[in-house]
Amino acid sequence: MSTFTPQDPDFEARIRKSFARQRFMGTLGARLVRVEPGLCEIELEHRPELTQQHGYLHAGAGASIADSAGGYAGYSLMPADSSVLSVEFKLNLLEPARGERFIGRGRVLRAGKRLTVCEIELEAWHQGRAQRCLYGLQTLACLHGQPDDGSRG
Amino acid sequence: MSTFTPQDPDFEARIRKSFARQRFMGTLGARLVRVEPGLCEIELEHRPELTQQHGYLHAGAGASIADSAGGYAGYSLMPADSSVLSVEFKLNLLEPARGERFIGRGRVLRAGKRLTVCEIELEAWHQGRAQRCLYGLQTLACLHGQPDDGSRG
Amino acid sequence: MSTFTPQDPDFEARIRKSFARQRFMGTLGARLVRVEPGLCEIELEHRPELTQQHGYLHAGAGASIADSAGGYAGYSLMPADSSVLSVEFKLNLLEPARGERFIGRGRVLRAGKRLTVCEIELEAWHQGRAQRCLYGLQTLACLHGQPDDGSRG
Amino acid sequence: MSTFTPQDPDFEARIRKSFARQRFMGTLGARLVRVEPGLCEIELEHRPELTQQHGYLHAGAGASIADSAGGYAGYSLMPADSSVLSVEFKLNLLEPARGERFIGRGRVLRAGKRLTVCEIELEAWHQGRAQRCLYGLQTLACLHGQPDDGSRG
Repeated sequence: MSTFTPQDPDFEARIRKSFARQRFMGTLGARLVRVEPGLCEIELEHRPELTQQHGYLHAGAGASIADSAGGYAGYSLMPADSSVLSVEFKLNLLEPARGERFIGRGRVLRAGKRLTVCEIELEAWHQGRAQRCLYGLQTLACLHGQPDDGSRG
Repeated sequence: MSTFTPQDPDFEARIRKSFARQRFMGTLGARLVRVEPGLCEIELEHRPELTQQHGYLHAGAGASIADSAGGYAGYSLMPADSSVLSVEFKLNLLEPARGERFIGRGRVLRAGKRLTVCEIELEAWHQGRAQRCLYGLQTLACLHGQPDDGSRG
Repeated sequence: MSTFTPQDPDFEARIRKSFARQRFMGTLGARLVRVEPGLCEIELEHRPELTQQHGYLHAGAGASIADSAGGYAGYSLMPADSSVLSVEFKLNLLEPARGERFIGRGRVLRAGKRLTVCEIELEAWHQGRAQRCLYGLQTLACLHGQPDDGSRG
Repeated sequence: MSTFTPQDPDFEARIRKSFARQRFMGTLGARLVRVEPGLCEIELEHRPELTQQHGYLHAGAGASIADSAGGYAGYSLMPADSSVLSVEFKLNLLEPARGERFIGRGRVLRAGKRLTVCEIELEAWHQGRAQRCLYGLQTLACLHGQPDDGSRG
């Protein structure tokens, strides 16, 4: 993995504020647990409200936190005066998402001025053991001069 | 679009039962509104609980219903005695998901014995006008002899 | 399909010049057969030099002309003073690419100032009948002020 | 990376025979340089015949060797009496493919009985330094009882 230097020293506070504005993350019960330059982790506890027909975490719930984790991993390297958009993502469902808790993780593979590429994944923790159940790629766009809180949108 | 002939005449009842077992669809407030051979539509009303930081539908919520719609579009053509798994999906985020309600839609492009490919999309309805906001592709696997309700799993 | 209005009335000449500079298209024996606003088709004859281990067209050869067709479909809508880059593409291999000739086709789904999304496909013509063997999605970036011929790069 | 145990001890010979039957690999000038359980590398020298309009390796040529490398990475773990099909792949174009030679590499992320998932990449070697220019994911299907040489097809 490359080491990244953030342009905005306050990237973590900026990301935590943005995450708090994502009502859907609260609906899922997701928590932002780790933010570093080019890396983000979002945690989710297993709840019956989030399951598919076989009792595992619905892939859409897992994709939601993986997509958000990737977005914030990329956003950590973008300027204060910007916002981030997902352009596209692709996920392979490697294993059923069985576990007591889940980590959605995004890592920047390439950070460009306008386009950033992340790998995104979902890890299931079951009986003390982690298994990667989703893995994929995500392309992000940086919107310069359009802060995430809409202050100068 | 091709015309498909289902192997199981009771495919709609089978899909409605499976949908009802998906707790996450209920959590989102999603409703199964249309099931035909090779086609499925799932509807979602806008609710603040489902939004991202700018007040639009979170892409993960949209992806959840698009993925489920694709899964059931494929499952409509599979035998009664089977279950369906998403192998992978890829989505492009074409426009912000702004609207009062959303339709997740899956359509089978290729139905094989083991592998099925669907196009999946999310349509936003805003002030009486529809706009496609997500579009993508999904690969499904058919598990023969493993009914969805686990009766002979 | 939407109808698109090109910004550059000479888009076809611009694309034909760019295609002629793609040495790899000549190596494959590919010909640019159709260029319209938001649409491009590239044709390839079957040749043993392009086959995989079972005698069908190698998916990489098909992907090459589908990717180029998508790139030029998008480029048809971009300004004269720009160049086009593929950001990413995803292809599903629906059927073996068996035929006497193949059409790679790109169609713009969304044309933005910086990012364009196309559907891309490969059609195999075998004994007078067409079959879609590859289908996918492609994201393109427009580089403004950087003409394709490098004249002001 | 996981460590994989091949089912067929003669996997390398089987893969080298299959590669030799891929006429398109010869057309590109590609060479199979490394085959290990769950891993494959294919090398390509830069040649003007393989370039796009800016003189770099055409993404389609790079995708061709990355796709083949992934296919053989997966095939290394499949039984002798099988063949391998690409179901789909997705590639992000991270950097222009500028270099004197290129390595297409596939690595198995998940090996299942029927479906295998690989990460695939293209590495450009320029002035003694390697840069990853393509990165993506690929899904493969194993066709049991259908050997690659068609002997019992």
